[in-house]
Amino acid sequence: MNADWLSMPCASLNENARREAEHRQTQLTKPPGALGRLESLAIQLAAMQGSSRPTLDRVHIAVFAGDHGVVAEGVSAFPQAVTTEMVRNFARGGAAINVLARQVGATLEVTNLGTAVDAGPLDNVFNLNLGPGTANFAKEAAMSSTQLMRALHAGRQGAERAKLAGVQLFIGGEMGIGNTTAAAAIACALLDAPATLLAGPGTGLDARGVDRKATVIREALTLHGDHGGDPMEVLRRFGGFEIAALIGAYLACAKMGIPVLIDGFITTAAALVATRISPRCDEWFFYSHASAEPGHAHMLAALGARPLLDLGMRLGEGSGAAMAVPILRLACALHNEMATFAEAGVSEKTA
Amino acid sequence: MNADWLSMPCASLNENARREAEHRQTQLTKPPGALGRLESLAIQLAAMQGSSRPTLDRVHIAVFAGDHGVVAEGVSAFPQAVTTEMVRNFARGGAAINVLARQVGATLEVTNLGTAVDAGPLDNVFNLNLGPGTANFAKEAAMSSTQLMRALHAGRQGAERAKLAGVQLFIGGEMGIGNTTAAAAIACALLDAPATLLAGPGTGLDARGVDRKATVIREALTLHGDHGGDPMEVLRRFGGFEIAALIGAYLACAKMGIPVLIDGFITTAAALVATRISPRCDEWFFYSHASAEPGHAHMLAALGARPLLDLGMRLGEGSGAAMAVPILRLACALHNEMATFAEAGVSEKTA
Repeated sequence: MNADWLSMPCASLNENARREAEHRQTQLTKPPGALGRLESLAIQLAAMQGSSRPTLDRVHIAVFAGDHGVVAEGVSAFPQAVTTEMVRNFARGGAAINVLARQVGATLEVTNLGTAVDAGPLDNVFNLNLGPGTANFAKEAAMSSTQLMRALHAGRQGAERAKLAGVQLFIGGEMGIGNTTAAAAIACALLDAPATLLAGPGTGLDARGVDRKATVIREALTLHGDHGGDPMEVLRRFGGFEIAALIGAYLACAKMGIPVLIDGFITTAAALVATRISPRCDEWFFYSHASAEPGHAHMLAALGARPLLDLGMRLGEGSGAAMAVPILRLACALHNEMATFAEAGVSEKTA
Repeated sequence: MNADWLSMPCASLNENARREAEHRQTQLTKPPGALGRLESLAIQLAAMQGSSRPTLDRVHIAVFAGDHGVVAEGVSAFPQAVTTEMVRNFARGGAAINVLARQVGATLEVTNLGTAVDAGPLDNVFNLNLGPGTANFAKEAAMSSTQLMRALHAGRQGAERAKLAGVQLFIGGEMGIGNTTAAAAIACALLDAPATLLAGPGTGLDARGVDRKATVIREALTLHGDHGGDPMEVLRRFGGFEIAALIGAYLACAKMGIPVLIDGFITTAAALVATRISPRCDEWFFYSHASAEPGHAHMLAALGARPLLDLGMRLGEGSGAAMAVPILRLACALHNEMATFAEAGVSEKTA
């Protein structure tokens, strides 16, 4: 397995389709700009899809799960067994992301990269067994180079399956007790930010728990020294299998030209790493929602990203992104189906 | 026609259903609170519908149109004929609200209360002919008492038709060149706010146009004297037919127990008047989006309202409310369909 694919260029946006879509927006029966961000969303999708009339019929959600050795440091409000229990919940269709996928008509695929408790064979779940979770990054690097490459590749393969299925929008979700700690550590390392800025309650730590989490991250940053300039090494030392898989998927989508809808805190950390590996990949990204996890705002600002929704969600699984799918679809429908001034015989602006 | 119905009490919320829904939220397989506002939306709808498992299959959009005499003062970027042209566009299905109603599967009803240019008979449009628009409130009261009562009643009748059809969520939309000026004047009068705070670009005035609009409103407030304490008189002097109809519809919904989803700038002014007529009616209101019209934030703050979306929209027609329908529906689906901890065998929070 080699990593050459990571350095391949990202797909180009179609500037002709963008201009045609921009022109169409000026002709629709509404004051110029009155649909706000819905106008730019439709125009962006036009440039991504190479069509002045973009559509989002086929949406795919890939959820990646993995455990985190750093949970041994007492950084989570839930026991580690919950990762496996939630993978079973995904398999049986009872989790939030299952409900949302059904409701928005998205396909859903679950990949378990490696959990502490063996889930056994499950319908609708790929089991990759990269290890019983990552190693504890408070003591050593979270992953070996081989594990990192396999996790990135798993994400790439998920994106490739989506491409074969003609997917028009890719959503990555994640499940992994402890992964807000990993995501916060990655963001601290790449953004040179203090642990207190990125450590938050996650699934529900109290103030003392958040302090402890920040201390664990701060000490780990010292232990691992300065790797701020090397996103792959930061990812190997602090990341999780599921975070690496998300990065592999996002990069593969950008290289194959599939629009990506980023979810919340963990996935934004993955998007941050992806942009450090392949700087223009975020031309293919939409940011769905502002997480209630306090550090999210700092990552979004660093990425220059402005999410579509702010509903106080902090669940992960891709749930915030799934909530934003109707917004993108309605933006397309308005763009494609509204009458023009000429078609409707409506007068244009005079003043 | 009498106005006794306006003083009837609003329907009560079902506190048992609320408590049952609150309890269910604590049992679903997610960290407590992780679905953010989606949790409280489902709980509120449960209390409104008197069911611990609320649903929103039947959504209705009623668009009210009317012209405004104050347009003679040069307060709009579009000519007055556009109100009628847009009513025709609604009738033929080409406007933004038609697209959105089709996409979210909502029924749509259009009522033309009175426009300067006669639209003639149109399929799918109720024509009420209250007058060729309101009078110019820069010179006199916008409406007679009879016109005001007829417009309020028209809104009430729209809500009653919705009730008969078993509608579970009512959206009011509006069309009326000049109606941001009317809505701003109403808000200034009721909130004792300066015209510069509420006057904005509307459909697209430049800075000079906005200044002119603020001057027109300020002088009209002086002309009509102090009516801040009497919402009906404020409405008669500054309002529009379509704004009065919205108020009638909102009040009738609250009295019959139909949840209402408020749209943007104009409809929030209507909601403000409604709460001054019947103070507890807003227990039945959801606020859908923050309009790009700058004065909207001031009205929302006065109402203690926190909208669901902020997409930079400023179109009216009910379009922002229609965009929020999927959010409410997905909140219900998550509430009703997610597995509980017991059903899924998932461990609960430990720390």
